[in-house]
Amino acid sequence: MASLLQLADTYQQYHNASGIKGFPPELYTPVEYIMALGGKRARPVLCLAACDLFDGNIQQALPLAYALELFHNFTLVHDDIMDQAPLRRGHHTVHKQFGMPRAILSGDVMMIYVYEYFKHLPDKAFREVINVFNQSAIQVCEGQQLDMNFEAREQVAQHEYLQMITYKTAVLLGASLQIGGIVAGASETDQKALYKVGVDTGIAFQIQDDILDSFGDEASFGKSIGGDIRQNKKTYLLVRALELATGEDKAQLEYYLHAPDVDPEQKVATVKQIYKQLQVTVKAEEVRQQYHKSAVEALNSIEVGSTKLEPLLEYINSLFERKV
Amino acid sequence: MASLLQLADTYQQYHNASGIKGFPPELYTPVEYIMALGGKRARPVLCLAACDLFDGNIQQALPLAYALELFHNFTLVHDDIMDQAPLRRGHHTVHKQFGMPRAILSGDVMMIYVYEYFKHLPDKAFREVINVFNQSAIQVCEGQQLDMNFEAREQVAQHEYLQMITYKTAVLLGASLQIGGIVAGASETDQKALYKVGVDTGIAFQIQDDILDSFGDEASFGKSIGGDIRQNKKTYLLVRALELATGEDKAQLEYYLHAPDVDPEQKVATVKQIYKQLQVTVKAEEVRQQYHKSAVEALNSIEVGSTKLEPLLEYINSLFERKV
Repeated sequence: MASLLQLADTYQQYHNASGIKGFPPELYTPVEYIMALGGKRARPVLCLAACDLFDGNIQQALPLAYALELFHNFTLVHDDIMDQAPLRRGHHTVHKQFGMPRAILSGDVMMIYVYEYFKHLPDKAFREVINVFNQSAIQVCEGQQLDMNFEAREQVAQHEYLQMITYKTAVLLGASLQIGGIVAGASETDQKALYKVGVDTGIAFQIQDDILDSFGDEASFGKSIGGDIRQNKKTYLLVRALELATGEDKAQLEYYLHAPDVDPEQKVATVKQIYKQLQVTVKAEEVRQQYHKSAVEALNSIEVGSTKLEPLLEYINSLFERKV
Repeated sequence: MASLLQLADTYQQYHNASGIKGFPPELYTPVEYIMALGGKRARPVLCLAACDLFDGNIQQALPLAYALELFHNFTLVHDDIMDQAPLRRGHHTVHKQFGMPRAILSGDVMMIYVYEYFKHLPDKAFREVINVFNQSAIQVCEGQQLDMNFEAREQVAQHEYLQMITYKTAVLLGASLQIGGIVAGASETDQKALYKVGVDTGIAFQIQDDILDSFGDEASFGKSIGGDIRQNKKTYLLVRALELATGEDKAQLEYYLHAPDVDPEQKVATVKQIYKQLQVTVKAEEVRQQYHKSAVEALNSIEVGSTKLEPLLEYINSLFERKV
């Protein structure tokens, strides 16, 4: 088994040498721009790692890894328009840099190209990959719509929040692992386990992200702390707090969610205080641990021997080393 | 051979019974809305007609016909955002009706679903359809970008204009016919001929549309006359006029293209007068006829007997019966 650092390096070399080029440049420059912005490349690395787990052909998996990164970046381009986000990874978002029409259209062409990167597969794998990909891609759109719906709602149930992050974020990680397994000829049982590894890891990661956005260390988190609170984002913490708050806590929470001219620093400080009183951070950390544990169990159910599983296990655990 | 009216009816029944449904409704209601707005259903009808030409299985072609209509409507939803169009077929555009974020996202999910409608095909046809579809879908995006580029340019060459309308409009008509042929097992030669029939018909139709927008009969054209002139749209007429105009004509044309507070009625009347003087309508009509003729020749090259070709031939000719 190759180390994940080696696979990440192999992927990045392929990524740098690839790219959708064509005419007119106004359509393809934004694609080049977003694909060069960086990021963890989690989906490609998971895809290659799953392929390697079953001694699959990494060369055959590389175009699929690229397709998954292309799709992920397409969703970022369009989501940033919908969210009116000015910055992505410290740079202008695509619509800020190139204007909204080109951002929409470049995203569209990326989406079509995803399927071009599936075409080298043999018939059976070709179909299986399209099946798994389409299901997840549709759910990613549904998850984004749920996220937008929740912004306009007063209350969101815990299970609704979990469905939203599963669709919006987690299923594509599951699909990335499963697609790597498909290329390597993994059994259906192992494919299902791989999918579960990705989905549960994704849910755990998103809950951790929610915690860190309010309680993380600004330097290591890489974003300013309290952004979610300032924007009234329906995070796991807020969803649970709205569920549990009563009396004075509830009144204060409602006030800060609706007051138009509230001081942002005071809002962040007060809402964090309420979160602590209600112990929602502790509860969130418990749920995060459950999903993390469930992902590890699913991984260990794959019968390839623990030595082979080690790199993926380490990778997953490394995602949760960031401390509050 | 079924008559095209029968095929159109068969398609419409399938269309009405189909539809992408799912959760959350906020994502799928806009899809239902645009797919119910009507239109000529040209792409589905061409697809079914091509299939029927080779005695293919219409039941197998119907989901593909629907996929082509879905893709076409996806491009309308996103193009209307880019063009900031308020109306489509006499109704609010999707972004006017449901807001821009939902219009972007509903378009995205339509695009993914296109590939779901290809999945029932046997392996060989599945690959061939994806190949033909992807190439055209990518070109549709490239054509839309060229169209946007041209809006910002002073001068556009005739061949550039023809490339733009070929990509933006014509190739998908070609692909619709070719995909119908693929399902019916048409030879590669016949597939190429079908594609050419669609592309040349599409080019001829767009040039006719450009002529009618300035010189048509308002009632039968269904849009207000002169819209392209009012918006400085780079139509075939304007492209040729800018190429041919000299002296006073050129000065007047430049004036009306750039003057900020010009009376729209006077602008339309004067530009039409210049078009007449330069005979660009006559030239446009000549080019339209060439493409129409070339489409008919390509159709007649298909060796299935003239009786079988009759309905498609009639359909194509009927597109050009609208008189100036």
